[in-house]
Amino acid sequence: MNDAREVVVLRYGHRPGRDDRMTTHVGLTARALGADRVIFPDNAGQSAETVRGVTDRFGGPFAVELRDDQKAIVKSFEGVVVHLTMYGERVQDVEAEVREAVGLDEPEVVGEASPPRDLLVVVGGEKVPWALYERADFNVGVTNQPHSEVAGLAVFLDRLFDGAELDREWEHADRRVVPEATGKTVVDADDVPASGDDDATGTDERGADAGTGERGAEHDDAGERD
Amino acid sequence: MNDAREVVVLRYGHRPGRDDRMTTHVGLTARALGADRVIFPDNAGQSAETVRGVTDRFGGPFAVELRDDQKAIVKSFEGVVVHLTMYGERVQDVEAEVREAVGLDEPEVVGEASPPRDLLVVVGGEKVPWALYERADFNVGVTNQPHSEVAGLAVFLDRLFDGAELDREWEHADRRVVPEATGKTVVDADDVPASGDDDATGTDERGADAGTGERGAEHDDAGERD
Repeated sequence: MNDAREVVVLRYGHRPGRDDRMTTHVGLTARALGADRVIFPDNAGQSAETVRGVTDRFGGPFAVELRDDQKAIVKSFEGVVVHLTMYGERVQDVEAEVREAVGLDEPEVVGEASPPRDLLVVVGGEKVPWALYERADFNVGVTNQPHSEVAGLAVFLDRLFDGAELDREWEHADRRVVPEATGKTVVDADDVPASGDDDATGTDERGADAGTGERGAEHDDAGERD
Repeated sequence: MNDAREVVVLRYGHRPGRDDRMTTHVGLTARALGADRVIFPDNAGQSAETVRGVTDRFGGPFAVELRDDQKAIVKSFEGVVVHLTMYGERVQDVEAEVREAVGLDEPEVVGEASPPRDLLVVVGGEKVPWALYERADFNVGVTNQPHSEVAGLAVFLDRLFDGAELDREWEHADRRVVPEATGKTVVDADDVPASGDDDATGTDERGADAGTGERGAEHDDAGERD
């Protein structure tokens, strides 16, 4: 989302079949909420294909990688490593420190901003090794309650970027959804400026499948193979 | 989370088997991020059982209901209805209006706050009927990109409560995770005050399964049946 630093989401562990949908949602959430790249385990090819397909249609830049060396990626990452875990420090207590560590804070004195650093956000799937807790610069809990790694990632990214990710513009998109109070409007991305012009006119396909080729689930993985 | 108003999450549609995990995550996310109740379709009994189990162990109050009259619930809801959809208005544009509608805004003049009203947050699963778009007081998009209904719900709730949900205290919990920079500590809920005392000592089960009886996935559904 920003040329100064790369924000990478690493999905740690994946059980083909059972985890396909969760892994896909981790990838789509990373893309939608401002990350630049997601890394899946190499047995998550189906999820990678789905996320790449969404990027082809709805724009990027966003990269999807399949790698079999999760441990080495974490160990050798040159930048800040955040591990999302329900055992970690409370996100509301450490988010300012994380932002400062990667240079996303607003300096109190002009020119005093920290330099930008890359960020690796590790999202657990299967049980993660203890070494990850030790390597992480921050173990962060979005609540200390058991819930969803997708929800934790979403809240973390929204707080990391302080909402700026919601205004991101997309490049090389085929189509674009027009935000509406009541409607389901999808237009060719070339037809209108991509800068949140809510008054843009387009093909209104109310009640239809919005012509996206998706299976119509709202906020859903939108194209995953069954 | 608040006696003044009830925040209810309605999962619209559920395909047994395929949607079990997503529906469970919708329920756990609703619980962890400040909602008071979740309503699942009545064919989502397995997800309901999982969410109730987490509430039994980690505390509440949080209610889980199975209902077969989704349409009627939405139609007759006495309060504000928000429908999360990628076709909706941008969350950053309407969140203040939603907060004001349910009395969560901070009044500019003392005593000028809106009265509290109940809120129904509808999360799509299967394709939702057009009538829902029309009935909703707000169709809200957490981005207008296809991603995850769990991520959308998480960001919406965090913004609705303005982060206050992260400080929620839990009643009748058996156990409590102690937030730590590096650790996996779970204590009996009775052992320590539930008010975020980070210095509390407890059983440190580093590298073990933290004694929670969960299957060790971080931020995961923590107990769902395979």
